[in-house]
Amino acid sequence: MSGFGEATRAVRVGEGVYDVCLDEGYSIGGPLNGGYLMAVLLRAAVDASPHEHPVSTSAQFLRAGRPGPARVRVEQVKTGKTTTISRASLVSDDGPLLETLVTTATLDPHAEPVYTAGPAAEMPPHDECLPLPEPKPESGMTLNGQMELLFDPPTVGWLGGEPTGRPESRAYFRLRHGQEPDPFVLALAVDALPPVVFSAGLRGWAPTVELTWHLRALPAPGWLTVLASGRLIGDGWFDEEAEVWDSRGRLVAQSRQLARVGRG
Amino acid sequence: MSGFGEATRAVRVGEGVYDVCLDEGYSIGGPLNGGYLMAVLLRAAVDASPHEHPVSTSAQFLRAGRPGPARVRVEQVKTGKTTTISRASLVSDDGPLLETLVTTATLDPHAEPVYTAGPAAEMPPHDECLPLPEPKPESGMTLNGQMELLFDPPTVGWLGGEPTGRPESRAYFRLRHGQEPDPFVLALAVDALPPVVFSAGLRGWAPTVELTWHLRALPAPGWLTVLASGRLIGDGWFDEEAEVWDSRGRLVAQSRQLARVGRG
Repeated sequence: MSGFGEATRAVRVGEGVYDVCLDEGYSIGGPLNGGYLMAVLLRAAVDASPHEHPVSTSAQFLRAGRPGPARVRVEQVKTGKTTTISRASLVSDDGPLLETLVTTATLDPHAEPVYTAGPAAEMPPHDECLPLPEPKPESGMTLNGQMELLFDPPTVGWLGGEPTGRPESRAYFRLRHGQEPDPFVLALAVDALPPVVFSAGLRGWAPTVELTWHLRALPAPGWLTVLASGRLIGDGWFDEEAEVWDSRGRLVAQSRQLARVGRG
Repeated sequence: MSGFGEATRAVRVGEGVYDVCLDEGYSIGGPLNGGYLMAVLLRAAVDASPHEHPVSTSAQFLRAGRPGPARVRVEQVKTGKTTTISRASLVSDDGPLLETLVTTATLDPHAEPVYTAGPAAEMPPHDECLPLPEPKPESGMTLNGQMELLFDPPTVGWLGGEPTGRPESRAYFRLRHGQEPDPFVLALAVDALPPVVFSAGLRGWAPTVELTWHLRALPAPGWLTVLASGRLIGDGWFDEEAEVWDSRGRLVAQSRQLARVGRG
């Protein structure tokens, strides 16, 4: 099992109850990445379902997750031929971290789109894109070690004091260590980029309050492209939309999160 | 109390328990409109919260709602200075209709945006827009009687056999009987237009599986503008995004739903 597979492992210990161990390798300076927490929870939710894929996940983020043992509880709300709807929560010793509603279904890997829009933005070729600078070990940004991100240069201009003035973030994404994309990797990908508000000139910890993402197709092997933007920053809140395209040029995931503007 | 206020009334009968009466005036040919069901549930969720506004609502639609008595149960998951997170469900005699996660907070009516994008599409003036034809009484489309909708003409071309070929629907929206927009009216507005897939040439009942919407600002009196579109139709699923702008030109609500393609 790959590093990511191991780090998101959920061991069934009873009816709808799973032991998990939150991995220190997915930290963003202390708290664990929210996408990683969703991936862990979804491993349990899918195991508890007769269907194979997490097509829709709505997550409320209750508190920051820390490395260590935790538990997922999955309760089936309704199941039918096409979908199963579950409530699932991720609970650590500190209390509940995530409260979610998850719809599972079984997607057809060979389905062809009836209609598809094009990507929300165009990306320059890989060799014109930029990685983030290596984080200092004392920063606790261990997440960066798990993935390769190559950014559309203007969307990381904020690093050099030149934000674009718009909430946006765009990058090619893949996990290191040869882990190919699957639905759980997509849960990480939709929340893996720096907050879009950094590009609008804001800074500081931007805690997610709610994130909903939909799995739209099973991803092909290779690089993913993550295109993120926001529509409104105001009253202490902002939205962040991400769409994820796979190497075949298919829209594979869509997300929107509502988050608080940081005080940094 | 207005017709809409009365039709969404939630009467507290115990700790987190509310009696409601689902109104036959919000039917779309039998089943009740999903946005109306959310509005009813949110009346209870907000009453049970120390905060005033439903800023984020994620709803799983479990079965079609019918007119008659029902019950809302609200369970607080976490409360703090800024937000309260609740689980809320709407249950009728047939069983659970909606399972939701709701975040409430108190928005500032005078907040000015730090950043705002423009509307996703431009609308022609009101007098160039088209109402839907009056539904036949036997159709059971009572919802049409509650609201005025004026459509951007191409997006209702499907009515005359000329769909645009893209999932889209755009209209000015207001409730009849002088009811001005409020957060509960917005819950209705995000799901009030015909499914965007009709414009892509598809037909038939398109059941919502999941709908998440965010209240971004308190709406001003007057007409709302609802701009809806979709990104992907495939494998029996489609997405529908709606954004709602108020008469001051403010983005007041954002939604995305994942729904099944109809078999019609």
